[in-house]
Amino acid sequence: MTEADLQHYLDAHIPPARALGVRVEEVGAERVRLSAPLGPNLNHRQTAFGGSVASLAVLAGWSWLRARLAAHPRVPALVVQQQTVEYLAPIDDAFEAICEAPSAAAWERFEKALSSRGRGRLELTAEVRCRGRCAATFRGRYVAVAAD
Amino acid sequence: MTEADLQHYLDAHIPPARALGVRVEEVGAERVRLSAPLGPNLNHRQTAFGGSVASLAVLAGWSWLRARLAAHPRVPALVVQQQTVEYLAPIDDAFEAICEAPSAAAWERFEKALSSRGRGRLELTAEVRCRGRCAATFRGRYVAVAAD
Repeated sequence: MTEADLQHYLDAHIPPARALGVRVEEVGAERVRLSAPLGPNLNHRQTAFGGSVASLAVLAGWSWLRARLAAHPRVPALVVQQQTVEYLAPIDDAFEAICEAPSAAAWERFEKALSSRGRGRLELTAEVRCRGRCAATFRGRYVAVAAD
Repeated sequence: MTEADLQHYLDAHIPPARALGVRVEEVGAERVRLSAPLGPNLNHRQTAFGGSVASLAVLAGWSWLRARLAAHPRVPALVVQQQTVEYLAPIDDAFEAICEAPSAAAWERFEKALSSRGRGRLELTAEVRCRGRCAATFRGRYVAVAAD
């Protein structure tokens, strides 16, 4: 899955991603990096709205998992089950959410559960950065359910 | 603060609230209820995108606190510091986020800290409902900083 593939998928299938101006910057097995401009995500303090920060981060985690599973013969259904965001600093410019691959052990457990029980759960983290510093941290629990 | 006041504030100052189609249904000391249509909040599974669910809930908490503090001579600055969402069921229609007033004791602690130290923290919860049932729960920690 290339950056253009993922961008097209988000634009075509997830209207809020388009509304928030989400751009796919990088897609790979090690990392997904998404960005958003400040304009469509402003709050009343002229910084990024907390819900938009959560949206970009939850999409980064989802995108990493979706891209990582793209080679599967039948891509499982993916949903987010739980998410937490800690807001560390105001975001006053364009921002990025970077989801890095989980540990090899966590990935192995997830793949094993998915293939043996048809359902796997995976915790992913993401960092939200603005002007080169970490402005928020995200943790999400995603569930994959094998296609029938 | 009336429903129309809050609607106007969100529409004028928080562009993502407008993009997600947020509507103010009810504003009062006991409760704030916001709604959003499914269309602009769809994900790739034709249900509500997790980031939009988080956005509506974080706005409901913020709105309750903003409305509750509207009578203050100088309205404090309000920001969300931390939030958690548990997704319980897919949302396949318009949805609502309902933030209820916290306990009287929690509110008193918050007001005391705000007036004595110029800064108060408050935990608020919200329920996200679709077709009359609870589809997600939200917990957010908000910080109010007294205006100079």
